[in-house]
Amino acid sequence: MTSWTPANPAFAHAVRASFVRQSMMATLGAEIVHLAPGEVDLAAPFAAQFGQQNGFWHAGAVASLADSANGYAAFTLAPAGTDVLAVEFKINLLAPAIGDRFVACGRVVRPGRTLTVCQADVFAETAAREGAASKSARKLVATMSSTLIVRARADRAGTG
Amino acid sequence: MTSWTPANPAFAHAVRASFVRQSMMATLGAEIVHLAPGEVDLAAPFAAQFGQQNGFWHAGAVASLADSANGYAAFTLAPAGTDVLAVEFKINLLAPAIGDRFVACGRVVRPGRTLTVCQADVFAETAAREGAASKSARKLVATMSSTLIVRARADRAGTG
Amino acid sequence: MTSWTPANPAFAHAVRASFVRQSMMATLGAEIVHLAPGEVDLAAPFAAQFGQQNGFWHAGAVASLADSANGYAAFTLAPAGTDVLAVEFKINLLAPAIGDRFVACGRVVRPGRTLTVCQADVFAETAAREGAASKSARKLVATMSSTLIVRARADRAGTG
Amino acid sequence: MTSWTPANPAFAHAVRASFVRQSMMATLGAEIVHLAPGEVDLAAPFAAQFGQQNGFWHAGAVASLADSANGYAAFTLAPAGTDVLAVEFKINLLAPAIGDRFVACGRVVRPGRTLTVCQADVFAETAAREGAASKSARKLVATMSSTLIVRARADRAGTG
Repeated sequence: MTSWTPANPAFAHAVRASFVRQSMMATLGAEIVHLAPGEVDLAAPFAAQFGQQNGFWHAGAVASLADSANGYAAFTLAPAGTDVLAVEFKINLLAPAIGDRFVACGRVVRPGRTLTVCQADVFAETAAREGAASKSARKLVATMSSTLIVRARADRAGTG
Repeated sequence: MTSWTPANPAFAHAVRASFVRQSMMATLGAEIVHLAPGEVDLAAPFAAQFGQQNGFWHAGAVASLADSANGYAAFTLAPAGTDVLAVEFKINLLAPAIGDRFVACGRVVRPGRTLTVCQADVFAETAAREGAASKSARKLVATMSSTLIVRARADRAGTG
Repeated sequence: MTSWTPANPAFAHAVRASFVRQSMMATLGAEIVHLAPGEVDLAAPFAAQFGQQNGFWHAGAVASLADSANGYAAFTLAPAGTDVLAVEFKINLLAPAIGDRFVACGRVVRPGRTLTVCQADVFAETAAREGAASKSARKLVATMSSTLIVRARADRAGTG
Repeated sequence: MTSWTPANPAFAHAVRASFVRQSMMATLGAEIVHLAPGEVDLAAPFAAQFGQQNGFWHAGAVASLADSANGYAAFTLAPAGTDVLAVEFKINLLAPAIGDRFVACGRVVRPGRTLTVCQADVFAETAAREGAASKSARKLVATMSSTLIVRARADRAGTG
């Protein structure tokens, strides 16, 4: 794997300070479970209020977690005083999003001064059931590619 | 615009029956505001708990609404006894998702026996403020293309 | 439809001057058949050397035409002295690309100082056959969404 | 990496027999340089007739190579007597496509009875120049995610 050098020595602090402002992440119960230059993993428990018609996690919930994982992966490499916004993302839904917990692993593919491209894999984790023969399992349920734009903090405009 | 003939005469009932099972839509406060063969519009009010770091609606919330709009647009043309699942979608985020209400307009581009392709536009609506000069406004904030697979209802497997 | 105001009064000249430098367009036999602010249509004849395994036009040939249509649609709105490069695109292939001629209609969805988003539809056209009952036909075979970046001409770097 | 079991013991023969029918690959001068279950690498030399306005390889040429790499990666796992067609793909263009040779490495991410998802990386390779200090180099210029549909051979219809 490529190893990246962060432009902001306080990148971890910057990521955590921004993450707590994302109310969507709090609503999903998401937390940061891995944080390194160019790499952010977010995890959220399954919860019944984010379901689609069959009770699986809604594709939009999966996308929310993966979008934030990619956004913060990009943000680890951004200069101090900037903000990162998603320009676009595409997600392939590979299997039903059912499990005890979802983990989105965002990785920088190519960083840039203006645009950064990231890739996230989302896994559904199922714990072993007590007294049963079932084992814990981890299944790839989605993969996302994202383009993110780095902006000076004061500029809160969109993607143009 | 193309006009489509629904395979299921009870398509409107089928859409509404499925929509109320999507707990994510209830969580977002979304409702169906337009429903016709190949066309579904969903609206949801802005709410602070689905924000990103600047207080805009999170891209994942925008994607949730657009994904369901496209899914139900496809579902209007699906035979009775089937289910529709998103295989993939791509969203371009065109402007900050800020406003009083978001409306996602899903439209079938090409229906198929197995796969259907849809396109959604998402608008942010801002009401005129009383006693102020501001007018109500409607702004395009995102556009999504989706591929959906039509499945027999009993088969709850994924996209493969 | 939205109507756009070009920043460069000589936009049509700029588009044509760039188009003739795209050797891929000459190789495909493509020509500009419509050119207006935010709108470019490109047409190319079917030719056997760009086929996939069944003799249809290769998805990459379809994508080449649509990518250039979107790029030049964006370029009609770019300031003088700039260049436009595709950052990403996504294409949905809706029907076999078979016909006498392909027409890609690129349209600006949202222009921006840095990034512009475009949408293209690609049609396969089939001429009526002499002495036969067949009528001419036009079929939608693909749809593409693209993000393009506007750059100062001297800067030939990539998308970052 | 995951290791896949091909359903067709003659998968390598099937891939090569289809590849020679893709006239677009011959036009690009592409060849198969790696072939294994779930994995196909295609290489093509730079050639001036597939350029964009700055002389780089056109994004459509890059996409053609990556689309075929992903298609044949999927085809290695398809049953005998079937065909594989791209339903959609999305490409992120990461750096100018300039070099002596391009290599697209297609990999199956998730195989399925109906749909298979693949991911391709495209590299530009530059040979060391004789008598000069320059070294050979390999640079990632694009990444593509694709959805492919597996069809019985006789059915030549599109993606629906």
